[in-house]
Amino acid sequence: MIIGIDLGGTKILTAVADKNGKVIASVKVDTQAKLGPKKVIDNLKKSVTLALDKANIPLSRISCIGVGAPGPIIGDGTIVSPPNLPGWKKVDIKKLLEKMFRKRVVVENDANAAALAELMFGAGKHAKNLLYITISTGIGGGIIINRKIYRGSFGIAGEIGHMNVLIDGPRCKCGNRGCLEAVASGPSIARFAGKNDALAVEISARKGDKRSLEAIGQAAKHIGTTVGSVNNLLDLDMIVIGGGVANMGDLLFKPIRKWASKCAMSITRKHLKIVPAKLKTNVGVMGAIAICLKGSPDEARRAKSGDE
Amino acid sequence: MIIGIDLGGTKILTAVADKNGKVIASVKVDTQAKLGPKKVIDNLKKSVTLALDKANIPLSRISCIGVGAPGPIIGDGTIVSPPNLPGWKKVDIKKLLEKMFRKRVVVENDANAAALAELMFGAGKHAKNLLYITISTGIGGGIIINRKIYRGSFGIAGEIGHMNVLIDGPRCKCGNRGCLEAVASGPSIARFAGKNDALAVEISARKGDKRSLEAIGQAAKHIGTTVGSVNNLLDLDMIVIGGGVANMGDLLFKPIRKWASKCAMSITRKHLKIVPAKLKTNVGVMGAIAICLKGSPDEARRAKSGDE
Repeated sequence: MIIGIDLGGTKILTAVADKNGKVIASVKVDTQAKLGPKKVIDNLKKSVTLALDKANIPLSRISCIGVGAPGPIIGDGTIVSPPNLPGWKKVDIKKLLEKMFRKRVVVENDANAAALAELMFGAGKHAKNLLYITISTGIGGGIIINRKIYRGSFGIAGEIGHMNVLIDGPRCKCGNRGCLEAVASGPSIARFAGKNDALAVEISARKGDKRSLEAIGQAAKHIGTTVGSVNNLLDLDMIVIGGGVANMGDLLFKPIRKWASKCAMSITRKHLKIVPAKLKTNVGVMGAIAICLKGSPDEARRAKSGDE
Repeated sequence: MIIGIDLGGTKILTAVADKNGKVIASVKVDTQAKLGPKKVIDNLKKSVTLALDKANIPLSRISCIGVGAPGPIIGDGTIVSPPNLPGWKKVDIKKLLEKMFRKRVVVENDANAAALAELMFGAGKHAKNLLYITISTGIGGGIIINRKIYRGSFGIAGEIGHMNVLIDGPRCKCGNRGCLEAVASGPSIARFAGKNDALAVEISARKGDKRSLEAIGQAAKHIGTTVGSVNNLLDLDMIVIGGGVANMGDLLFKPIRKWASKCAMSITRKHLKIVPAKLKTNVGVMGAIAICLKGSPDEARRAKSGDE
């Protein structure tokens, strides 16, 4: 049996699952991020105890604990200053949880874990090379190469939200200008449409509101052009798009596909496949389960030494 | 001993090398591409015989023949309609050469082979993940992941020249608009500067000609922004830039680095490394040698089945 933990800025989602990724029980507790790392770790521990109780399974039957965490992960499992966990400079959460539970612990960036979850349990079951994008408050991504998470040379690959799409474009939260996130995230769409959030834009757009349709169309143009370009570079089996904004469905996917196809080379166009994520709000916890099932210590060691 | 063949649109460069990639002898013959595939294959054969003679080495001592060829390679070694080899629809050059010489033959797209050559013999000796870009008449690329050529799901990865950099930008030879190649290739730079070719632009720029400097600056802005963006996505050890236009040196690399750094996220900026290719006109033949040394049949088989 496996425990998957989705460590978010406001909630901790913890599930007990079997070796096939089937969830037996899951619980949700407040992260209480403002109270600092110690309190958050206490809440992690509490969530594990609660989930085991709910599943009626003793800790002794657990073989691995997977954690999907925001921000970059250094080394095997050190969380470094994630934007939505204030006060976390460098916390070796892997070591902490290993000591606490005496179990194998696997820690992964949440977007990478989500990409693996879509590969193993979601839209990408038959894919070899896949890009996962999440569009919500920000735009993040995870890359799967040869059915494995691709972390890059320094563990920070996948930042599709900070690819430049508009030279000298609007300022992004990261400090640069014209990033995809700055023109196509939920808040960017809402701002352009003069609404409070992306959901309000969607509702107006479905009623035919011109400005809302335009806001969605513009975001889709940038997302589509970016994924079409990335597909020319990486020649992927598929691009999976999730996150709150992706719930708009065809309103967003139709123009995304149009622009991606426009920018794809003719030789790649016929292979271009852009699909909505299958896993919804549970993608985080399924990602945490996926990294346990996939990321055996041997595999990790091989990947590290570069001779896989 | 190994034979490396750089099959170009105008010249065939063939070299005999030892197991360390040291070239013993090399010859150059005309491709005569206009006379069709049969004549080209004859010329390939002639070049091999000439190179062996020059090296004073019998065919019996050759263990592998590597071929770097333009355009996409299907399966193990079928060349498909490369733009600069007219009349080649589908030619299984691997089978042809295997029958002709009774040796192991490895065929690879030339940009991929060049990327591997830079990794093994050039600027990327210590890199694990690397992007190679060639800027000349067109803009091509090859991606190295985990010290291996990354071919993508359908064998056509690496087309950085056809990433979109300017929405609704100038028409590209590929039919789309605003590709990197359409704004930053040698001919694009020359056109912008009102000169015959990129070399003429360089000479004028070194004399202080404003329009030439502007043309180079504009190309560098797009190249820099693209590689900075790609580095945010792929988190590479280094980006190696070669091809005729890269011979401009710092005139081109300084603004490329400036714009790449501007577009890199702060966490990736410190790792960003953009270097000129070390191999010059012999990069093609060194690539053909590299694929022989690296691409053992077992490796290829494993990569194909997806379980490497």
